[in-house]
This record gives sequence, structure tokens and C-alpha cells, in this order.
Amino acid sequence: MSKIEKIKKILEESRIYNDSITMINWDMETEAPKASLEYMSKIISFLSRKSYENVVNDEFKNLIYSIDENTLNPIEFKMIKKVKKEIFEKMSKIPVDEYADYSELVANSSSKWQEAKQKNDLDIYAPYLKRVIDYNKKFINYVGYKNHPYSLLLSDYEEDLNVEIADNFFNEIKNELIPFIKKIVLLKRDELNRIKEKFYSRKYDIEKQKQLCKEISEILRFDYNSGVIKESEHPFTTNTGNKNVRITTHYYENNPLSSIYSTIHETGHALYEQQVDDIYEEYNLGGGTSMGIHESQSRIFENMFCKNEKFVKKLYDLLDKYFNLDINYEEFNLLLNEVDTSLIRTEADEITYPLHVLIRYELEKEIFTNLDEEISIENLSNKWNEKYEKYLGIKPTNYSEGILQDIHWSQGAFGYFSSYALGSAYASQIYTFMNKEIDIEKELENLEFSNINKWLKEKIHKYGKYLSPKEVIKNACLEDFSPKYYVNYLKEKYSKIYGLEV
Amino acid sequence: MSKIEKIKKILEESRIYNDSITMINWDMETEAPKASLEYMSKIISFLSRKSYENVVNDEFKNLIYSIDENTLNPIEFKMIKKVKKEIFEKMSKIPVDEYADYSELVANSSSKWQEAKQKNDLDIYAPYLKRVIDYNKKFINYVGYKNHPYSLLLSDYEEDLNVEIADNFFNEIKNELIPFIKKIVLLKRDELNRIKEKFYSRKYDIEKQKQLCKEISEILRFDYNSGVIKESEHPFTTNTGNKNVRITTHYYENNPLSSIYSTIHETGHALYEQQVDDIYEEYNLGGGTSMGIHESQSRIFENMFCKNEKFVKKLYDLLDKYFNLDINYEEFNLLLNEVDTSLIRTEADEITYPLHVLIRYELEKEIFTNLDEEISIENLSNKWNEKYEKYLGIKPTNYSEGILQDIHWSQGAFGYFSSYALGSAYASQIYTFMNKEIDIEKELENLEFSNINKWLKEKIHKYGKYLSPKEVIKNACLEDFSPKYYVNYLKEKYSKIYGLEV
Repeated sequence: MSKIEKIKKILEESRIYNDSITMINWDMETEAPKASLEYMSKIISFLSRKSYENVVNDEFKNLIYSIDENTLNPIEFKMIKKVKKEIFEKMSKIPVDEYADYSELVANSSSKWQEAKQKNDLDIYAPYLKRVIDYNKKFINYVGYKNHPYSLLLSDYEEDLNVEIADNFFNEIKNELIPFIKKIVLLKRDELNRIKEKFYSRKYDIEKQKQLCKEISEILRFDYNSGVIKESEHPFTTNTGNKNVRITTHYYENNPLSSIYSTIHETGHALYEQQVDDIYEEYNLGGGTSMGIHESQSRIFENMFCKNEKFVKKLYDLLDKYFNLDINYEEFNLLLNEVDTSLIRTEADEITYPLHVLIRYELEKEIFTNLDEEISIENLSNKWNEKYEKYLGIKPTNYSEGILQDIHWSQGAFGYFSSYALGSAYASQIYTFMNKEIDIEKELENLEFSNINKWLKEKIHKYGKYLSPKEVIKNACLEDFSPKYYVNYLKEKYSKIYGLEV
Repeated sequence: MSKIEKIKKILEESRIYNDSITMINWDMETEAPKASLEYMSKIISFLSRKSYENVVNDEFKNLIYSIDENTLNPIEFKMIKKVKKEIFEKMSKIPVDEYADYSELVANSSSKWQEAKQKNDLDIYAPYLKRVIDYNKKFINYVGYKNHPYSLLLSDYEEDLNVEIADNFFNEIKNELIPFIKKIVLLKRDELNRIKEKFYSRKYDIEKQKQLCKEISEILRFDYNSGVIKESEHPFTTNTGNKNVRITTHYYENNPLSSIYSTIHETGHALYEQQVDDIYEEYNLGGGTSMGIHESQSRIFENMFCKNEKFVKKLYDLLDKYFNLDINYEEFNLLLNEVDTSLIRTEADEITYPLHVLIRYELEKEIFTNLDEEISIENLSNKWNEKYEKYLGIKPTNYSEGILQDIHWSQGAFGYFSSYALGSAYASQIYTFMNKEIDIEKELENLEFSNINKWLKEKIHKYGKYLSPKEVIKNACLEDFSPKYYVNYLKEKYSKIYGLEV
């Protein structure tokens, strides 16, 4: 066996451990009985340790560093580079016992979060969150950082992202969007309230919602031969390779839009995973390249394609067929594009959404500014509420709609939220450039996604992790990332809907 | 760490590997997308190898054999004894590569079986079945056997069972039941056909069936805090410990009895697992002690409790409430206790059921009599059909209702079927002795299962694998196993229903 073959084999073994963990996590989120969760977390801890030990050892390190990079083809080169960076410059700095403990902690912490949220009881969750934060601070110290500790966490989800770039991005959002939102949030209020009253005061059979979501996912060309759609509390996508891609949604009897748009969002993620070329899987470069690019794919489907009025017209007919709607198309379109300040990120509209992310960004940055500072979760919760009042003008009245609303921190995913806003910004830019080659609205009018998906595959999806986020944007748009498309798109779209001058 | 602690830790690690496999198998059977199955099988193969290597090594062997058995408490003693027998007298005789290949083969083979059954195409499955059989023959040679090679496979599922004991048991069934069945199968035929025509020609809403099955499982006291009920092609029970017990059923729109009685059957299995004492889990003695005892628990619920007329009366009312039945209680009771020869084991009535097992027993015994003989699957299928004609008087007209009907062989579970018939025989004996302490019919009349379950827990369930099947029967019945209860029970019950002299 050549050195490269040996490396591929070892990486494949770690992938198998990680994919086993993925499957057990999937089970825990979607169906595991309560009493089993503790043992399931133990399984995850054990497998994490095995995955870690499999690559963090001198033998593998020597193998990796003994490779003459000049002899490698570009895919092999990228594989080796990624191993050096992620394993030997990051993971190996964390002692194995702490790595395994942490894996078990976050598995447990997620189920405590769920319980705490249901009971609106921060105390159940606070000690777990505190430990998760403390571990992350410790890990930052182990790995080391440049300029700002939080930059390390940001770059876990988005290569090359750091506090400086993120600050610039969020300042743009703060300066451009907050005043704009303040203006339009007051418009068409009465009309919207009347539409909402009509739309949300009736019941939409859940079995029918399931059928409808299936039909929509098929229109978007989700591949059921290599995918599954199921239910969970909080919609998400997970996968082991491109042939086993799983998404979830959540059905609410009085709100079919929730299940429809979360299905569309997660289908965007799923298509990215399903369209990665097999060759990259083999070199451990399968899967989306970053959380930001991933989110661009879910958001481009959710917002740019499926809230486009061409698509909305067809969606209206479909919903009307299933449920015999009480509102007309114009009302439906306005409802879908409502702008209102709300407390829950996942229910936020397209334009207030980045403010929710901004709040999380600022809180996380503060948590990870001084690594020695003791963190008080109660205090963090207060700051959460204050920022909602400051940026959105409303304040949570309980923990479940405040600091307990998101699963992410329980899973240790600090630095993740930014990629949500960044993803939307990528999506606007990608849409603009796709539109130069494909008449997108014409495709949407025909509920035709084959050309759109093909373009996304060729420009983005198929490369998996072989291209960095930066390279993906350059490949798709022939220029570097710029946030201007995002802010312009939002202001233009909503000015039109709400009858404002741009 | 003491030697015993070390042993417990190593066994726990293997249990974690095996439980990960269990969870992935569960996923494959219930929801995995088709394209993922091949990679899932690869995960299973990898984890099987790890589990194997974890215990099959000199270090662990030395540890086990260096223990002074005189220093052990009874639970420790049993743990060590089981390790010696299962690992060092069996598993370790099989080379690790073949063990892992075989694990992957059976995972693949199961999905090929499923496809073959759907398409009624033996060719898809035959080469896999042949390889599974060849591996089993090879493994018998590696391990060695006394008297008859097939005895080794029988004892995999039922400690101390061998061809001699099984031959005696099946001869009793053959001699006593075949002539008896021939007599009653002709009785009440017209009446039954009329009832069946009425009952099966309408639709029973599947969502309602789901609710009803849930209600019944709750009556039987299935613990949802440590259990899950889901759907699959072929109903089954699986678990990782006593806190994560999973059962499946399958819903047919024209036949609610299928989902109801498979739910009852699997709940019997599940209760056994859920009621094992925690202490035995810790010593690797968790779970049911044998397939025969396991099946006694599913059968005692399915047939002895839930086809008892006291229970059937209540079940009738429940079904009538859900579906507004077109038949009366007497007709319903006769329908439930119909005796008819059929081709499908899982749909067979209580009294013809053991003949289906008899056929599989004879075929398996023949396959594993001469280990050097080449096996022809086509030939095996012909023999299958001939035996159905001989014992049941009917012959399959296609593979799906013949040799392709069961999943077991695809999973390499040769020697398993016997435990189904043995389980029913155990159940009759256990029922007789339970009835001396509890007025079972009175409990059933009140749909009250707490005393019944408590008795089963105290006499059988709680011991897990700490007691052997032989010891379990002795503990519950204060005597050794005897097949006479079974044959007597069947003849008595059906003589009464069909108006024959006993």
C-alpha cells in the first residue's frame, strides 16, 4: 500500500467512526426514548475517542509529514493540507480524555437543553452550558489564536473568517438594515394582521402537510433514493456522505408555512450534499465546504427561489388545492414577505433575520473575548434580552423565547451563527451571477429546478471540500465575496413590496 | 483497577460497538435510503471487526484465564463462564477477516433479500444466501461440534439444545398435531369464509390503526420512556440494554389484526428486555437469555393472553369503537382462532404455526448435515415447496411466498426458527404455572397486566442472561421443560372451539 493509500484508509476509518456518531445523533434527535439518551451519549463519547485516537498519533503524524507534496495530485494535496490544519494544528492539541468528555457533554447537554426549553427552566441547562463554554475556552487556549480568541471559533465553520471581517459585515447590516427595517415594519400592519388572523386561525391537517412537503421536496428534486425526510423538534440536515442525506421538519397544525419553508430550507442543504462528486468522498473531501456556503444553498432555495413571486404563485395554487385557502394570492404573497420584529430567530422574516444573528454574534464575541473571565449564564440571558430590546425593540418574557430558543450552544457550536447571515449574503451574490446564465424566474414559473440544480452542481456542489469557501464564490461569481449584493437585494425587494423609494 | 473491573470495561467496549451496530441495523431496517445501504453495511463490517479485536486477543484471554474462579461472586462467575464459552471456545476460532467479511455480507444480504422478495426474483438473492450458508459451514468447521454439525447452530440460540432434543420435540409435533389439524381444518369452513369476506373486504384507516396499536401497547404496559414503536417491512424487536427497546409493526389497510397482533407479539419481547435488572447489564448479562425464552414471552402475550376469550371480548369492543365492525363478537373470536393451512409463517394460526417451523428445521438440518456438500438454492427452494405440500397440503406458486418469505437466512440466522416453536411450548408451560398463582383470566377480563408483568419479571425477566433457559423454566415452573403442556393446550383449546371430543 502506498503512503497515500494508507492515509486514505486511516481517514476512512475515522470517517466511519464519525458517521456512526452522526447516525446515533440522528436517532437521538428524531426518535430515541428518553431513558436511552444517557447511554447513547456514552456511545458517542466512546466513538469520538476512537476517532480521535485513530488520527492523533505519532505514526499517522509521521506518515502525513513524510509525504513529499511535490508528488501529489491536486486532490491529494488538498487532503494532506486539510489533515495538517484540522488534525495536527487543531484537534491534536486537545488531550484525548477532554475530547471524549466534551463529546459526551455536548450529547447530554443537547437533551438537557431540550428539557429546559420545554419547561422554560434555565437552571436545568445552565450548568451544562457553562461547562460547554468553559471547555471551548480551554480548547482555544490549547490550540492558540491570532488577534482574537473568537476568530478561532469563527474559522471552525468558515475558513478564513475572523473577527475583523465579521465585524465589518455585521456593521454593514447594523448600519444599513436597522434604520430600513424601522421604516417598513410599520407599513401595511393592519392588512397583515387581518391576513394573519385569517390564515393562522384555522387548522391544516398534518397528514396533508406531510404529503405537501413531500411534493414540494420532489419539485426541488430532493433525491429520495439517497435521502430521508423525518420530523424533529428543530429542523436540521445531517448526512454520511452523498448517498445518505437526512433532513427533518416540524409540523404545526395551524401553520403549514413553517413545515413548507423548513422543508425547502433543509432541501437546499440536502441538495448540496447529494450533489458532491464521489471522487471527493474518497479523499475525505466530501460534504459542503463550510457552514456559510452550506447556508447559502439553503437560503437561496428558501428565500431567493421559493419566496420569489413566480414561485409563490405556484405555491399558492398548490396550498389552495390541499387546504382550500381563505386568503387570495396577493394576501398570501404579502404574508410570506411580512416584515415584523419577533423574538424567535427561526421564525424571523428574511430581513430581520440577520439582526437575530447579529445579537448572537455580539454575545459570543463577548463570551470569548476574555478567556479567563467567569461566565454567568443568568447574566448572559439578561444581555440577550437587552440586545433584543435595543435592535428589535422587543424583549423576551421567558427563557424559552430568549436564550433557550436555539440548540446550537448546547452542541458547542459557537461561531456557527455568523454563517447563517453570511450564507444569505453569499446567496444574493450567487443568485445575481446565476441569473446571468439562466433565466431563473422563467424556471421558477415552471416549477423547474433541473437547470438551477445543474448550475449549482457545476459551480458549487460537486467540489465538496476541494474548494475553499473563498474559491467557491470565485468559481461561481468570478469575483470575491462582497456583502453589497445582500443589502441591495433586501432593500430593493422590500422597498418594492412595501411601496418605498429605493 | 481490579481484574474484574478491567474485564467489565473491555466487555463494555465491545457492547458499545455491538450496540452501535444494532442502531445502524435498526436504521437500515426502518428508514435508511436505498443508496446508503452499501456504505451502512461497510460501517457494520468495520465496527464488527473492532468489537471482535477488542476481545479476541491474547491479553484479554490471559486476563480471563488468570482469574481464580473461587474468588468470584455468582454474577462474576457467570460472566467469566459466558466469555470463555462464547468468545474463546467459539468466536476466536473464526479469523477476524472472515468475521468482518461475514458481517458485511449479512448486512448486504438482508437488503438483497428484501429486493428479491419484492420482485419475486430468487436470482437476486441466491448467490448471497449461498455465501451465507458457505460461511456458516466454514464456521462450524472452525469451532468444531459434537454429534451433529447443526447442533452447534441450534445452541447459538438455545443453550443446550441439540439435534437429538429438537428431533424429539418436532416428532411430537408431527405425530400429534398433523392428524389433529387435518380433522379441524375442514370444520366451520363456510362460516369462516363468510366472516373473512366481511372482515377483510373493507378498509381500516392506517392512522387509526396506529392509535389503536399504541393504546394496546399501553394496556400491555410497554414503557415508552425506554422504548419506541415504528414501522418496518417485517416486524421485529431490537434493543441496546433495558432502556432502549425498539419494536416495529407493519400496517395493512384491509387487515388491522396483522398490526395489532404483531404489536402484541413484539411488546412481549420488549417487556422481557425492559424488565431486566440493571445489575446484569453491568456484568454483560443483560438481555433475554435465549431466543426460545424470548419467544415464549412474545407468544405468551400473542396467543395465551391476547387470544384468550376474556381478552378477545375487550379487544372486540375496542376495535368496534375505532372501526365500527361489521361482525359480532362470536364471529370475531372464531376469526381470531381460525385454523387454516397457509403458505406464510408469520400469518399462520397458532396451531399450524409449528408446522412452518418444522419445515425450516428439517431443511436447515439437511443443509448442515454434510458440510462438504455443495448447496443449490434452486434445489432448496424445490424442497421447501415439497415439504409444504406434504405437511400442509399446499404448495407455493412463487418464490416470495416460498423460500423468500423470511428474512432470517439472509441474516445468517440458521438454528433460530426452532426457538419459535420451542417458545410456544415454553409459553404453555409457563402459563400453567403462572395460573396457579394468579387468576390470569380475571386479570385479562380487566385488561390488567401489572400483576402478570410483575410475575414474569420476578420469575423470568429480571435475571437477563444470568439464568440459562433451563434454569429459567425451573425457576418459573419448579420443574424441567416438557412439551406435553403445549400439545395438550393446543388440542384442548381447539377441540373446544371446533366442538370436538378431546
